Amino acid sequence: MSAPEAATNSATASLPDDTFVSDASLRPQFFEWLCRMGDNALILGHRTSEWCGHGPVLEEDIALANTALDLIGHTQMWLGLAGEVEGEGRDADKLTYLRDAMKFRNLLLVELPKGDMAVTIMREFLFDAYHHLMLSWLAENSKSPRVAEIAAKTLKEVSYHLDRASDLVVRLGDGSAESHRRMQEAMDLLWPYCGEMFAGDEIDAAMSDAGIAPNLDDLQTGWDAAVRDLFDEATLKMPDQGGFAHKGGKQGRHTEHLGFILAEMQFLQRAYPGATW
Amino acid sequence: MSAPEAATNSATASLPDDTFVSDASLRPQFFEWLCRMGDNALILGHRTSEWCGHGPVLEEDIALANTALDLIGHTQMWLGLAGEVEGEGRDADKLTYLRDAMKFRNLLLVELPKGDMAVTIMREFLFDAYHHLMLSWLAENSKSPRVAEIAAKTLKEVSYHLDRASDLVVRLGDGSAESHRRMQEAMDLLWPYCGEMFAGDEIDAAMSDAGIAPNLDDLQTGWDAAVRDLFDEATLKMPDQGGFAHKGGKQGRHTEHLGFILAEMQFLQRAYPGATW
Repeated sequence: MSAPEAATNSATASLPDDTFVSDASLRPQFFEWLCRMGDNALILGHRTSEWCGHGPVLEEDIALANTALDLIGHTQMWLGLAGEVEGEGRDADKLTYLRDAMKFRNLLLVELPKGDMAVTIMREFLFDAYHHLMLSWLAENSKSPRVAEIAAKTLKEVSYHLDRASDLVVRLGDGSAESHRRMQEAMDLLWPYCGEMFAGDEIDAAMSDAGIAPNLDDLQTGWDAAVRDLFDEATLKMPDQGGFAHKGGKQGRHTEHLGFILAEMQFLQRAYPGATW
Repeated sequence: MSAPEAATNSATASLPDDTFVSDASLRPQFFEWLCRMGDNALILGHRTSEWCGHGPVLEEDIALANTALDLIGHTQMWLGLAGEVEGEGRDADKLTYLRDAMKFRNLLLVELPKGDMAVTIMREFLFDAYHHLMLSWLAENSKSPRVAEIAAKTLKEVSYHLDRASDLVVRLGDGSAESHRRMQEAMDLLWPYCGEMFAGDEIDAAMSDAGIAPNLDDLQTGWDAAVRDLFDEATLKMPDQGGFAHKGGKQGRHTEHLGFILAEMQFLQRAYPGATW
């Protein structure tokens, strides 16, 4: 992780004052919330990296590898701050490589298998649309200067991810009969996992009350509109599952898929504790 | 691993004298050779276990799960003896869960992905035909009483594996056009990995010279004849790749597939060192 490390180092050089980072009363909730931000980026980054060398065309292969690298870089920042807030000596690497599945806080959406390109692109769009709204709010409004700073940095890359994914959803949704069918199937598969993004709990409420993070209901209104507009353009139908949503990832209750990701991701640090390169 | 443990315990109760086990001059070669026997059973057992819950019909699902359990049981005995011979306090569990890929000594054949049922059944047959000849020789002729004892115990189960796999190779090879095509494709895929079973090195020579294990050339003659007869019956063609064989597994040079097997297999002991249940 050389690039993300460099990003953290340059951030360390001029850290803004942030009373939230040392505020013991908010520590457990703030730590959890930062893990959610970091783990979403980490696990989606890992899934995206699985395409490396397997993309259907060279340009997509490289674009996906770059997206994965961006997300791993974001992880380094979010989990780095999480470790600071926790104050128990765990850095981003330790949080990444030495937590077991029940300690991960990512959405179920991002841990699902990568599927075909339709599933990959559709998930990227659905998550990016949320991610972009979240980071935009944080960059402009968060009362935690450190959070606002990370959000501003990562927002640039996520804007590009969202542009690219939106473009592909339209081109493939409104493309051939085969590409349309696959995109609709991807949508039907992923839709029941979208609700978790906006299902707030006491952690989200505490962050929102403190002015660190947005109210998720407000975020959902923007997301619904953005997704609906793009789907109209892509000639795709919004599924109706009566408001049902798979949930649990944010609280550590994961699908079986996460364990297999971690077994692979964590092997080196588990087998050779403390190894560096 | 409750059943294999029980098998080891009952073996421990009445161990035959075996001067080879404490013979320091032969120790490195004997340990390596025992790891080869144990690792073949372990890795093929793991691959076979991947079908559990995914078999095309219930009967095959259960048969494959049972075969996997048999092989894991054999592993416990071979690696248990390997640990004794090594004399450094590593038991079968430690050898299984705490070695990295380059320390594994299995044939490349058994670590290849499970593929479809044709690949799974074809591999089982090709390996079983070798395994059965090997164990038969060891049970009757090995000058190491401990090796002969394990061979006699495991031979019963491997005889059944070979019967079952042979029967399926004939039924599917001489079956429908689709099943014939798939079995021939499986054969063409696996054939270049068969040569490693009979490619002797200095370890094999030392074991053969000591009278512990057979001469691999002799074994190959029997294997060639058995495989050729069955393939005639199954209307399958023996591929001709001019004597080429993928090799390296016996010496620890593995395909990328083994690392992924170990990441999954070893996760618990790596993440929770020393955990028991």
